[in-house]
Amino acid sequence: MRITAARPLADGVLEHELTLDGIPGVLWTAGPDAPPAPLILLGHPGGLPAMYPRLAARARHAVAAGFAAATLELPGCGDRPRSAAADAARADLRRAVTAGGPVDDEIVDRLVLPLVEQAVPEQRALLDALLARPGIGGPVGVAGGVISLGIRLAVVEPRIAAALLFAGSYVPRAVVEEARRVRVPLLVLLQWDDEGNDRQRALEVFDALGSPEKTLHANTGGHTGVPAFEGDDGNRFFARHLLAGSA
Amino acid sequence: MRITAARPLADGVLEHELTLDGIPGVLWTAGPDAPPAPLILLGHPGGLPAMYPRLAARARHAVAAGFAAATLELPGCGDRPRSAAADAARADLRRAVTAGGPVDDEIVDRLVLPLVEQAVPEQRALLDALLARPGIGGPVGVAGGVISLGIRLAVVEPRIAAALLFAGSYVPRAVVEEARRVRVPLLVLLQWDDEGNDRQRALEVFDALGSPEKTLHANTGGHTGVPAFEGDDGNRFFARHLLAGSA
Repeated sequence: MRITAARPLADGVLEHELTLDGIPGVLWTAGPDAPPAPLILLGHPGGLPAMYPRLAARARHAVAAGFAAATLELPGCGDRPRSAAADAARADLRRAVTAGGPVDDEIVDRLVLPLVEQAVPEQRALLDALLARPGIGGPVGVAGGVISLGIRLAVVEPRIAAALLFAGSYVPRAVVEEARRVRVPLLVLLQWDDEGNDRQRALEVFDALGSPEKTLHANTGGHTGVPAFEGDDGNRFFARHLLAGSA
Repeated sequence: MRITAARPLADGVLEHELTLDGIPGVLWTAGPDAPPAPLILLGHPGGLPAMYPRLAARARHAVAAGFAAATLELPGCGDRPRSAAADAARADLRRAVTAGGPVDDEIVDRLVLPLVEQAVPEQRALLDALLARPGIGGPVGVAGGVISLGIRLAVVEPRIAAALLFAGSYVPRAVVEEARRVRVPLLVLLQWDDEGNDRQRALEVFDALGSPEKTLHANTGGHTGVPAFEGDDGNRFFARHLLAGSA
């Protein structure tokens, strides 16, 4: 991993552009004198250039609450080489959702499973690189993004101690089964009126998740309408599980 | 309404026993020098003597956050005259739940509708009496208890500005329809593994509620296993909607 640029934002937050084996990403931390902070991996749907403003806002909020935050571009998204197979699956999904019918499991599998397979080792390599830096400590939280990726990471990556999952994208049947093996504390966000999502399937995923401590926060509104107060709720969730001695 | 006894609790909270047309209740406030506080009506399943420890804990938590809190015994419960019809309906419900089968709408109607009919004017009379006292201001929040009663109060009582509903009891079909007329901001709690409740029906009720701002918090665990952090979340919900100038 190389840090290719660093600049101060408001509130004493430092933003670092990074590249990991050619994959672009961003790291946000408090100033150099701050004590080591637990790391939150910020998820997104793919496409860092377009997602940057929202991610930076979430990151500043997380740093203000005592965390470091980082994100990495997803395979086939943003400035990374596109995948013809993923683009075709995405187009098929969009057609199925627009037609209002049920979405074939086969389309969801084609879209999500290769993305998860490829992204998980990349995200774990990012953890290796970031946790070696001074100023970033464990444990690690995962927040948002493609829920199937968050589920897989929570199952396979023991450094992850808590996960905030956004139930806003289709989940392959195989990942619903995998969800039963998750054990870390969970906060699951669901937008109740998200027309591009399957609410019943999202509730099935919440039900399947095997964590003894899991909470669902469902709010009125569409995919991008998560209320601002959920940002505070998310910080408090991570504070309970990642910050020693927090309430 | 008469205050029949008053005593200081820890943290400067004052507890007042009250009686309203012979119905026992409790009022909790900050000390006499505190500014007027919004009132939270604390719900419960009926039976104040048994529920007192949990209600007092919730009330102290609410007073510490800047509210006054009050509760009133439900019809047919605690030291009030019992209703043979309600007792029979309750026994029928218990039998149906124990048998594991679906619960007849007719049983739910017999148990819940008369209780709501009788309790609503009593709760509104309590509001009349309490809001006339110095130290208690509007607006009013409803918190927990029999969800059908909370829904009806939110529909008919304009002084109620926010409601925290506990989706932990059977809701008559007529009240599900009535839920569509609720407009105040809502926080709905659901215990995901509550064996004496119908989870699917609870989700239907959440879906039916007509409020533009509504949030569902579902947690693992049984009926009485609401996590302690939901107490803080509830206070913050009421602070957003009842305390002027709060975040």
